[in-house]
Amino acid sequence: MEGILNRGSERLLEGARNKDVGFGWFDLPDSPPERLFETVEWLRGFDSVVQIGIGGSALGNRMISSALCHPFYNELTRKERGGPRFYIADNADPEGTSAILDMIDPTRTAYVVASKSGSTAETMANFLVFLDSLAGSGVKSPGGNVLVVTDKEKGSLRSFAEETGCRSFQVPSTVGGRYSVLSPVGLLSAGAQGVDINSLLLGASAMKSSLSKKKGISGDPAMVMAASAIHHFRKGRNIITFMPYSGNLDSFSEWFCQLWAESLGKNGWGSTPLKAIGATDQHSQLQLFAEGPDDKLFLFIVPTSRRDLLMPAPSWSSLDDLSYLEGKGLGSMLDLEALSTAAALVKKCRPVLWLEIPVLDAFHLGAMVFFFEYVTAVTGLALDADPFDQPGVEQGKRYTYGLMGRSGFESDAAEAREHFSSILGISACL
Amino acid sequence: MEGILNRGSERLLEGARNKDVGFGWFDLPDSPPERLFETVEWLRGFDSVVQIGIGGSALGNRMISSALCHPFYNELTRKERGGPRFYIADNADPEGTSAILDMIDPTRTAYVVASKSGSTAETMANFLVFLDSLAGSGVKSPGGNVLVVTDKEKGSLRSFAEETGCRSFQVPSTVGGRYSVLSPVGLLSAGAQGVDINSLLLGASAMKSSLSKKKGISGDPAMVMAASAIHHFRKGRNIITFMPYSGNLDSFSEWFCQLWAESLGKNGWGSTPLKAIGATDQHSQLQLFAEGPDDKLFLFIVPTSRRDLLMPAPSWSSLDDLSYLEGKGLGSMLDLEALSTAAALVKKCRPVLWLEIPVLDAFHLGAMVFFFEYVTAVTGLALDADPFDQPGVEQGKRYTYGLMGRSGFESDAAEAREHFSSILGISACL
Repeated sequence: MEGILNRGSERLLEGARNKDVGFGWFDLPDSPPERLFETVEWLRGFDSVVQIGIGGSALGNRMISSALCHPFYNELTRKERGGPRFYIADNADPEGTSAILDMIDPTRTAYVVASKSGSTAETMANFLVFLDSLAGSGVKSPGGNVLVVTDKEKGSLRSFAEETGCRSFQVPSTVGGRYSVLSPVGLLSAGAQGVDINSLLLGASAMKSSLSKKKGISGDPAMVMAASAIHHFRKGRNIITFMPYSGNLDSFSEWFCQLWAESLGKNGWGSTPLKAIGATDQHSQLQLFAEGPDDKLFLFIVPTSRRDLLMPAPSWSSLDDLSYLEGKGLGSMLDLEALSTAAALVKKCRPVLWLEIPVLDAFHLGAMVFFFEYVTAVTGLALDADPFDQPGVEQGKRYTYGLMGRSGFESDAAEAREHFSSILGISACL
Repeated sequence: MEGILNRGSERLLEGARNKDVGFGWFDLPDSPPERLFETVEWLRGFDSVVQIGIGGSALGNRMISSALCHPFYNELTRKERGGPRFYIADNADPEGTSAILDMIDPTRTAYVVASKSGSTAETMANFLVFLDSLAGSGVKSPGGNVLVVTDKEKGSLRSFAEETGCRSFQVPSTVGGRYSVLSPVGLLSAGAQGVDINSLLLGASAMKSSLSKKKGISGDPAMVMAASAIHHFRKGRNIITFMPYSGNLDSFSEWFCQLWAESLGKNGWGSTPLKAIGATDQHSQLQLFAEGPDDKLFLFIVPTSRRDLLMPAPSWSSLDDLSYLEGKGLGSMLDLEALSTAAALVKKCRPVLWLEIPVLDAFHLGAMVFFFEYVTAVTGLALDADPFDQPGVEQGKRYTYGLMGRSGFESDAAEAREHFSSILGISACL
């Protein structure tokens, strides 16, 4: 195990040094692009910001918002928020897109359209709808409202920026979508919401330095996680349960799921990341975790400190049974629940990894982002998988192009219909 | 297979007929409790409603809201909403609970506290915090703001209702938490938000009648799903991917995950429900689905009709490549993406089940709820598992009580610490 992991980490450092395709995320913490902070200020002048993107162009944005912004950020007053309301259009679902249209004044809204290729179907479809609504509000030139984040040269979005003169940022050509959160893809909307993006980058940079100095598997938390993931997958545990004890990390789990699944799910390999939130999922998935098949590795993610909220003494005699809670913190209770649940799983001989993180602020969130990117990349490189490509999603895209009538994809449409016809369809209709 | 499934469905009908413990959900659609509709009207008079519950006392509430209410319901004006804002306190996380406190005027808020046992630790802890905030606002008697939903006789919440004279509803003793969404546990908050709860019940009742008339496995969609789940688990596919193509069903997946995981994860059996949303997760998990291990059964959930949003012609020549989208619907595109993704998985020889549902309204959501409850219960009963208990979560609860210093649980605290000490802890700190 030590041999393959060392190989993984050597490949990572070499790829980063050579600035190979895929490895560009390694340098993002230390190289914020020009005009980033002034563009954030521009965004903060709007009533609303809509991020139009999908996958790596949306999950990181939601992850940062959930982790660092008020859970009901959009419901606060403008003064309380300090910045614009924030929406994410990351599905081709007419209900979701219509709902965002209901909430915004198109002329007072900034649209951050992010697609590395500049042609992602769902993103471009939503973009057409929002552009149309902007035009319908009398705005002839979209340059005052639209900002694109895309490849330096390729794709429709780059051409659009040139044609309309709208603001634009690059996704560096060596950075893949799921590793792009610390580029303008993720930083602009975070900054617009008042997140300290400089601290995010500093935290990531500090983690980069810290990991570079680690020696040997046991002293290196990233290597411990990579080794555990590989070991338990080989033992038949094909599920990796990502269970932070913090509601704010709910979307972090989804960001991690994409990172892990898309980077490592190839060549028949790949543990399936499963999202769980402590303590909530103790009342949902724990029964399966404890008494179902022994097919999971558990990652508990537990903050070592948090702002707490004290539980008062029950003031009604009917609640006297709860006196054991009096004067204790809700957060301390959550910490003890994490410990208890981990212990109960250990009693059942289920493998548990206990990851401690400091308090959840921008600096430490940046560090966590870099940590999990590093672990994921090393794991892939150790296993001879390319952690930066995603060839498996192309087939479905070609089928969709074909079925949508895009020229050049006619045979794909026929093939899609043929495969589809063999599916067992059942109707849960009445 | 047909034999064990028939046994499962016979056991279900017999248990329902005898009104055995656990089977009470079967009759919920046809027996709304008295005072339900007048209590909904009472709730609608408040500025905010907070549901205090966890697991089955929260997931169903969120599921109905997501499916049927405006995605930004709380951000709408009171007039647009028609009802109170709605919050759910379903974790012992001080950040989440504090955030709700930030948003409400305690005196203008109704608190629906739901716990079948009347003693769920996280729920009671949050309840103490909200009660204290209400008292701090000068409200001496909580009866004007608090409503409890709990067992008819047992537990602290029932005693509290008697002591304070606050409104109360029962969770019928034969209904388990995860099957309780069509009881006051789920219906009150839904009604408060303007959901047509009568239609929800009618839809569930119609599905009940429809399933009762089905004969033979192949003509019965519930049996097809149960048979597929059992077959593929036996073939080593220990993950069941629940993938609706509708953003509104995001929380339905989480509701289903609890139902399936807690009902079937026992005795070493139990496929792990995995949440995915189409088309969004095509850009997140699809790579793993297509090229990772062949360890999943895929359930596509696709509405057969939806309100659509047309894509306009691109008005900039740089976007001419998108002309294939012109005049098509965003929803039609989503439907074709579902078809394409299913076809691409079939090409890779991955098993796909295609579940069609009608348009997403209260009637059909109620039908879906009953459908999945029925499938889950039949699957468990067919496999000789009790789909209505959850013995595996008790150990962790005892450990938490012990660590919190509740008397009578001292030895549990010691045992928890001992097991915990054997866990591999790593620090992702700097």
